[in-house]
Amino acid sequence: MNTAVVLLSGGLDSSTALAWAIKEQGWACHTVAFDYGQRHRIELQAAARVATALGAHSHRVIRVDLAAIGGSALTDDIDVPKDAPDSTGIPVTYVPARNLIFLSLAAAVAETVQARHLVIGANIVDYSGYPDCRPEFLEAFIRAANLGTRSGTAGQPLEIAAPLITLKKSQIIALGRKLGLDYGLTRSCYDPRPDGSPCGHCDSCRFRRQGFAELQLTDPLHYPGD
Amino acid sequence: MNTAVVLLSGGLDSSTALAWAIKEQGWACHTVAFDYGQRHRIELQAAARVATALGAHSHRVIRVDLAAIGGSALTDDIDVPKDAPDSTGIPVTYVPARNLIFLSLAAAVAETVQARHLVIGANIVDYSGYPDCRPEFLEAFIRAANLGTRSGTAGQPLEIAAPLITLKKSQIIALGRKLGLDYGLTRSCYDPRPDGSPCGHCDSCRFRRQGFAELQLTDPLHYPGD
Repeated sequence: MNTAVVLLSGGLDSSTALAWAIKEQGWACHTVAFDYGQRHRIELQAAARVATALGAHSHRVIRVDLAAIGGSALTDDIDVPKDAPDSTGIPVTYVPARNLIFLSLAAAVAETVQARHLVIGANIVDYSGYPDCRPEFLEAFIRAANLGTRSGTAGQPLEIAAPLITLKKSQIIALGRKLGLDYGLTRSCYDPRPDGSPCGHCDSCRFRRQGFAELQLTDPLHYPGD
Repeated sequence: MNTAVVLLSGGLDSSTALAWAIKEQGWACHTVAFDYGQRHRIELQAAARVATALGAHSHRVIRVDLAAIGGSALTDDIDVPKDAPDSTGIPVTYVPARNLIFLSLAAAVAETVQARHLVIGANIVDYSGYPDCRPEFLEAFIRAANLGTRSGTAGQPLEIAAPLITLKKSQIIALGRKLGLDYGLTRSCYDPRPDGSPCGHCDSCRFRRQGFAELQLTDPLHYPGD
């Protein structure tokens, strides 16, 4: 059986990517979540729940102090935008080099568990503003990772899989539902309320709700005012 | 004045690379050290000392829990080899994907401080066994980093400088001395004794002592039995 390391935030995208890797590919999956000083820490609990529910082989939380780097609304005291108009630039919720850092740590795990695949839930439709979600970045990353690791240089190159890269949110939800994923376990909000429920108005909540609405489905999460 | 982010472990190589960036290039340097669960934590104090002594613009310590990944004598309960015969393979002190992870975090800092240069003290002479010290890895890395960051995609690409890449230890020491670096501030040992003094027998100590010996100089550090 092939082995994979899957980046798992506990959000809608990465949870669907994990369902794809386990249920559709049949890979033994080691999931990795990151405790990076994010204000939406509740996603770490969601990641653990999703890993268990889908039958991940192991689940790790790696602490990395991105708040010491700064520069993002997700780790700093910068307000998360609510009901923001669609913009073409890079949003303030962009964390500098986040996927570069997370993929690097995942590549180290892949080397340790001798995995062949690295799975990321990146998609370019809803997150076109994030440079580190683009296929050309992912390809350049895996080339660097293989040149810089023992496994890569020993002729056992790691391959990157981004199964959602061209899917829009409603297509991702449809895929996850087909694979039996319970989206009630996942969390997407960038700025959850004190009781852990989603704000309903940040970009992440908006994309998610829109995805369910397009499918004429009800998101199992409860939003304020529902 | 150009700005640089410099990976600074507090060891001989990275301290010399910092001296080169500040004294020879005239760059404003932000130094980054990593608290990664290494057993030779005394190097973190050395990094702070060296950053101050050489006049770094800022110094950061970023915590990243590589021990959660495992697989290395530098973070696990695996013995650090002493007086080991020269080998051609990758040593057990190799930390999976370490430079990939450190460079990724440094690239995030570079984006935050708007640096143009990323400086690493990697060299291929003494560390030929580490795949992540090779020039082809460093070039592939910076290409990925520029594709995955806001600054890289905005036409302000980050450049990588590895000024020691082809130098052997004695040449590195000669360069640092010419630039006024006090090697008494630096620490290289992988497995220091409880009082912080170097073991004298790990690979890192051996390369360092050999470098000073070739120059017919005395290492300012005290070794057991000196």
